[in-house]
Amino acid sequence: MSQNRQVKLASRPKPGLFQRENFSIEDIPIATPGEGEILIRVEVVSLDPAMRGWVNDGKSYVPPVGIGEVMRAYAAGIVEQSNHPKYAVGDAVQGLLGVQQYAISNGRGLVKLDLDKAPIERWVGGLGMPGWTAYFGLLDVGQPKEGETVVVSAASGAVGSLVGQIAKIKGCRAVGIAGGPEKCAYLTDELGFDAAVDYKAGNLAADLKAACPDGIDVNFENVGGDILDTILPQMNVFGRIALCGLISGYTATELPPGPKNFRAILTQRLKLQGLIVFDWAKRIPEAIEQLGTWHQEGRLKIREDVQTGGVDAFPDVVNMLYTGANNGKLVLKV
Amino acid sequence: MSQNRQVKLASRPKPGLFQRENFSIEDIPIATPGEGEILIRVEVVSLDPAMRGWVNDGKSYVPPVGIGEVMRAYAAGIVEQSNHPKYAVGDAVQGLLGVQQYAISNGRGLVKLDLDKAPIERWVGGLGMPGWTAYFGLLDVGQPKEGETVVVSAASGAVGSLVGQIAKIKGCRAVGIAGGPEKCAYLTDELGFDAAVDYKAGNLAADLKAACPDGIDVNFENVGGDILDTILPQMNVFGRIALCGLISGYTATELPPGPKNFRAILTQRLKLQGLIVFDWAKRIPEAIEQLGTWHQEGRLKIREDVQTGGVDAFPDVVNMLYTGANNGKLVLKV
Repeated sequence: MSQNRQVKLASRPKPGLFQRENFSIEDIPIATPGEGEILIRVEVVSLDPAMRGWVNDGKSYVPPVGIGEVMRAYAAGIVEQSNHPKYAVGDAVQGLLGVQQYAISNGRGLVKLDLDKAPIERWVGGLGMPGWTAYFGLLDVGQPKEGETVVVSAASGAVGSLVGQIAKIKGCRAVGIAGGPEKCAYLTDELGFDAAVDYKAGNLAADLKAACPDGIDVNFENVGGDILDTILPQMNVFGRIALCGLISGYTATELPPGPKNFRAILTQRLKLQGLIVFDWAKRIPEAIEQLGTWHQEGRLKIREDVQTGGVDAFPDVVNMLYTGANNGKLVLKV
Repeated sequence: MSQNRQVKLASRPKPGLFQRENFSIEDIPIATPGEGEILIRVEVVSLDPAMRGWVNDGKSYVPPVGIGEVMRAYAAGIVEQSNHPKYAVGDAVQGLLGVQQYAISNGRGLVKLDLDKAPIERWVGGLGMPGWTAYFGLLDVGQPKEGETVVVSAASGAVGSLVGQIAKIKGCRAVGIAGGPEKCAYLTDELGFDAAVDYKAGNLAADLKAACPDGIDVNFENVGGDILDTILPQMNVFGRIALCGLISGYTATELPPGPKNFRAILTQRLKLQGLIVFDWAKRIPEAIEQLGTWHQEGRLKIREDVQTGGVDAFPDVVNMLYTGANNGKLVLKV
């Protein structure tokens, strides 16, 4: 194989899900690494809800992916050629490698992976960016104290499933919100959440109240919309909300309304803070070390939803993030 | 005079402004202070936007005023009789004395006032609760740093006018949002704000951008609604929003929509925190000391809008808070 198949952004999607025509798939010759560069064979691509935002024009925390550029993605792979003193052929690495079969890197932003500790898909899963997000978002922003109640939405997702488990490790009551009885059972029976609330059951406010008899101290929010609106009035005074995502609005066809119960932030003196894991870039080794330890001790269960089909499958598989079709961290095998 | 005229809450107002029939005015005999109590002749009543919330049923930071109870209000007056070792006849005091001519107090929550330093209306004005709110809200929650841009809404109001002046003292660029050219001129010409934006001029987003060429680092928010929605996209990364009030929604006839641009909290990693000055109760002497010093040094200009008509005028005068008719901190002379 001497070709590198790439998924490029062909057009900016209209509001809503990604459309097949937003991407073009192209084969180009595999590039040769220059001085100080390495060539990486990409093995697994991480699919993350943030992708929908990355392709929108407009002010955000990173510049949008340009038309004609390889689609931005975290991915992990094996070094095939190296002109870089820190990387040897055969090393496993992770970074922003894009949706493609081969990537060139100068090493900046790369993290080396120990495949003896965990398989490669786990390093873009629970021990990768979703894990770091859960770790810093819950502990630094949410600041849960022992005995407090932590509610996480999209709780069976890559980030949410870890948030609840870390909350348990910290001695909190962990309550997850997820869609459907299967996902809810996974939270309580397999991950050890204290309670799970099925937002599709049509009784969210009452079910949440029953699951949080002492109110909510910390909300790790991934969804927004109606779910956040239901959580807000149940927040205790001085509660904290770590705003990690607004999945419910990512594919909205118009700007979704803000939370109707916004006033609770004032009356309950809540602290609401937006978070992007990049802001903790310098402390990522700390997260990897701690998450890895908890995982080895059996205190953090991690599940990937590994999709096959190679980079060609990307335009279809990525939409699973927004329809809730995935079970665990969504990963695409290249 | 041996009667005490009181304004009592007769019914809960429908959504919207207060109606005359929500209050009853009654004359009762002046009470006699018991053991450990004092009788205070109320001189000035503070009118505060929070009053509209105090009369609503439902979860809030204080219990609602009960039907048939004297309307809650901060007020200041002179001790007329004392059975309390800490208070002498003739002392000036401030506290939650209610909308009435005479109040009985056991001293809890009272603050003694030095009328040589400032007239009594100023002690429920800039040196009173609005001053403490501006002081703790801006400095503790907003955490402005030298050279940053601070935007305050309802800037010509009791709290807002102080927020901008304290921002200037801290070396920030102070930008006020107010309604009408007269209020805006007051901010820049008399209070020393760097810029003022007239939200009634119909060009808020562009005018705000022109007034904040380096974006907004701190927003001290009193209004909410469209004003907050215009501010949010102009907030710089890691900006702070001290949410002090949502005046725009206090008299809304239905739950107002949340901020459409809520997503900016995530993308710009903003910190939004609700604040109620009661939470700093223990540090109020610090605020009084510092505000008083700045005021004596001529660095804090304070203006009261003193309305006459006694407690009878309360039901009409209070609505000035929600229509923007007042100029400076609204105070009712009893």
